Amino acid sequence: MDVKDLFKEIKKFEGKDVTLEGWVRNNRNQSNFGFIDFNDGTYFQSLQLVYDKELSDFDTISKIHIGSAIRVKGKIIKSQGSGQTHELKVSFIELLGDCPEDYPIQPKRHTREFLREVAYLRPRTNLFNAVFRVRSVAAQAIHEYFQSNNYIYFHSPIITAADCEGSGQMFNVTTFDMNNLPLTEDKKVDYKKDLFGKQAYITGSGQLHGETYAMAYKKIYTFGPTMRTEKSNTKTHANEFWMIEPEVAFCDLEGIMDIEEEMLKYIVKYVMDKCPLEIDFFDKFVEKGLKEKLNKVITSSFVRITHKEAITLLKEAKVDFEFTPEYGQDIAKEHEKYITEYYNGPVFITNWPKDIKAFYMKLNDDNETVAAVDLEVPGSGELMGGSQREDDYDKLVKRMKEMGIPEDNLKWYTNLRRFGGCYHSGFGLGFERLIMYLTGIENIRDVIPYPRTPNNCDY
Amino acid sequence: MDVKDLFKEIKKFEGKDVTLEGWVRNNRNQSNFGFIDFNDGTYFQSLQLVYDKELSDFDTISKIHIGSAIRVKGKIIKSQGSGQTHELKVSFIELLGDCPEDYPIQPKRHTREFLREVAYLRPRTNLFNAVFRVRSVAAQAIHEYFQSNNYIYFHSPIITAADCEGSGQMFNVTTFDMNNLPLTEDKKVDYKKDLFGKQAYITGSGQLHGETYAMAYKKIYTFGPTMRTEKSNTKTHANEFWMIEPEVAFCDLEGIMDIEEEMLKYIVKYVMDKCPLEIDFFDKFVEKGLKEKLNKVITSSFVRITHKEAITLLKEAKVDFEFTPEYGQDIAKEHEKYITEYYNGPVFITNWPKDIKAFYMKLNDDNETVAAVDLEVPGSGELMGGSQREDDYDKLVKRMKEMGIPEDNLKWYTNLRRFGGCYHSGFGLGFERLIMYLTGIENIRDVIPYPRTPNNCDY
Repeated sequence: MDVKDLFKEIKKFEGKDVTLEGWVRNNRNQSNFGFIDFNDGTYFQSLQLVYDKELSDFDTISKIHIGSAIRVKGKIIKSQGSGQTHELKVSFIELLGDCPEDYPIQPKRHTREFLREVAYLRPRTNLFNAVFRVRSVAAQAIHEYFQSNNYIYFHSPIITAADCEGSGQMFNVTTFDMNNLPLTEDKKVDYKKDLFGKQAYITGSGQLHGETYAMAYKKIYTFGPTMRTEKSNTKTHANEFWMIEPEVAFCDLEGIMDIEEEMLKYIVKYVMDKCPLEIDFFDKFVEKGLKEKLNKVITSSFVRITHKEAITLLKEAKVDFEFTPEYGQDIAKEHEKYITEYYNGPVFITNWPKDIKAFYMKLNDDNETVAAVDLEVPGSGELMGGSQREDDYDKLVKRMKEMGIPEDNLKWYTNLRRFGGCYHSGFGLGFERLIMYLTGIENIRDVIPYPRTPNNCDY
Repeated sequence: MDVKDLFKEIKKFEGKDVTLEGWVRNNRNQSNFGFIDFNDGTYFQSLQLVYDKELSDFDTISKIHIGSAIRVKGKIIKSQGSGQTHELKVSFIELLGDCPEDYPIQPKRHTREFLREVAYLRPRTNLFNAVFRVRSVAAQAIHEYFQSNNYIYFHSPIITAADCEGSGQMFNVTTFDMNNLPLTEDKKVDYKKDLFGKQAYITGSGQLHGETYAMAYKKIYTFGPTMRTEKSNTKTHANEFWMIEPEVAFCDLEGIMDIEEEMLKYIVKYVMDKCPLEIDFFDKFVEKGLKEKLNKVITSSFVRITHKEAITLLKEAKVDFEFTPEYGQDIAKEHEKYITEYYNGPVFITNWPKDIKAFYMKLNDDNETVAAVDLEVPGSGELMGGSQREDDYDKLVKRMKEMGIPEDNLKWYTNLRRFGGCYHSGFGLGFERLIMYLTGIENIRDVIPYPRTPNNCDY
């Protein structure tokens, strides 16, 4: 039996005997009785086990180490103490797996830096147990949102031979022994001898492939790991992360904003409903005001402004920005912060200068901006980025030429505009950014089980 | 509006006007009226559009090409013809995206080999539309099964520096320009200068990492892409595929078989409930008897025999096997086939010879076999492979030494046996194998959107 199922209907179990298996989070005792904080990981809250001198092995139990795995039998009773409504009166405890006293996770405050070093043990702490449960529940919220709205979950390939996004951002993959590379006559690596018969990479996005399936299923989403080689040692960058990339046919920029807004509200509500204890914990110990922030997201209507309007707003602001906001330019973190604080909630910024955006975004009639949209949220900055896609074959090919992207490898992509093309839009949501937003955790290394960042690939 | 939502409650829409957007699968007409098979991809069945001479643009509509994207307005009426209960009487059609007559997907039978060459268009055919919808729905079945049973969805890392499974099966990843590798003084590749500061690989399994989280959450599952370098050009091997790897603490071999059986029945039932048209289609055109096979899985109780019993059964069989079955040896595809046909249903084979299984499997008391289990299913052979894990620290480390696996990189793994270790088990399910089993499709290249196999990495 899982502790979660016990807690769900704990009144029903009053006076009943149960058998549970799990771990000892703490063991405190006096001469006549003792308490074990017992947790099997399925539920945030620990169950209090009470044992007393009448047990023949009282002395053995009172010496059970923190971290040990045990099997416990006993009766669920109303608790006399504060802090819990019920507890378990022990009739029997069996030690399944001991834990030496040098066990790194002790019932005290550990720094997050220390816990990163023992990443394989940190989910046993309250904080990380909560973080990675929210991660799991948020993933399920995403699947349920899309599946219940007729989307197809599309598995885009990870390995690709099409160097379409610029290999600067992509990892190379090879089966070669790199100390013994086969070479061609002119001393270049002979990729013909590699597994795929050509040079292969890890893609940084599934979007282009996603579009091919949107043109068959109308609505698709990807949800999978993404790897990028960015050498950025910041709190918000990792070289391996998960991303969601929905793509919707017969959908314009307004439509994709509607979907982004509806989806985010759905996820936030779902997580708050399924993880109330965890959200309370984050609200109390990680980000004060988190619950209020999340509740506001659910009930408010997201503001929609153009990039031009955003720049005007920034220019009129009585603030000394480090970077001066300019029409036609990107906006900085400090600007995002000002805008979300100004509107006190999530803000869609649309119609960005074409030169700072990707080749596949739809050119607006002004010939200067594209139908792109970023969603900025208070505290976290950019949470999603999307656009309507260029569906005009000639304009797309022209833009690719201008930006030096060869069409040969992407014939299948440009052909989508020839074979029953239609107006369509999509966006990307960085899953870790979302988890940081939902939990208040500020470092991406603390929302990924085993983070990969520059010079860090442990475990 | 999605065609799926229309079909779900089509009677409600009788006599009502609707507007839909989607693609023309076929356009047949005579002098006074015509029919369009209209499909927006959200539903397997096409909607029949009827248009007649009274429309001022009858001639234009009658020339709309197959594959074109259109917007249609009209009234839902009862159909006079056979083949459908309802159809849409067109009042207006707008062409959104034309499709030239050299469009490769025409309303005729294409070979699967041809469709692999236009992989980006094949989901627009009935067969592949059905396959990849089942793939999506089966994925959701898996998530719902585990989430509703208190499992945590765990994202295991893809990139690893621990060469723990033997790098022979793993891809190398690097950010280096491979034609210009930085070298150390002794002319070896200087991995210190690579992004992670050491040599990095793509893992072939998330299991070991999964165990670390099972020791915190009791029940976890992974579900993500896996890459292996196997140079096998068979119908059942791909170099990139998706895998599900559940791991459960406080669970023995019998327990993990119970879970495998319950999960498989859940998935089969879920897919049959959600995709009845698709399953009918596969039953009719891909694998005769598929429905009966799947129904039997749901209702039967899976047989459980030991490896020894299986060998005895094979030895007693009046069949000339190409490979002679032997105690202590692996079993061949022909043996799997015989066994599943003999029992006429799924069969668990347990307690395998230790020398043909992985280092982490629990040694049985006979010192010769391990607590491993393979699930064999009729038609597809091995569908899942699992085991109880060795939870005795000394035995595990001894076995690693015997098999030449250095403990240094895996301290975090062996330590799980020191820090509150417990009996635990897990298994792996190849997602593509499952989809092949559910659809009757015989080639793995036809159940992966963009398959990667030796010498094939197109798109």
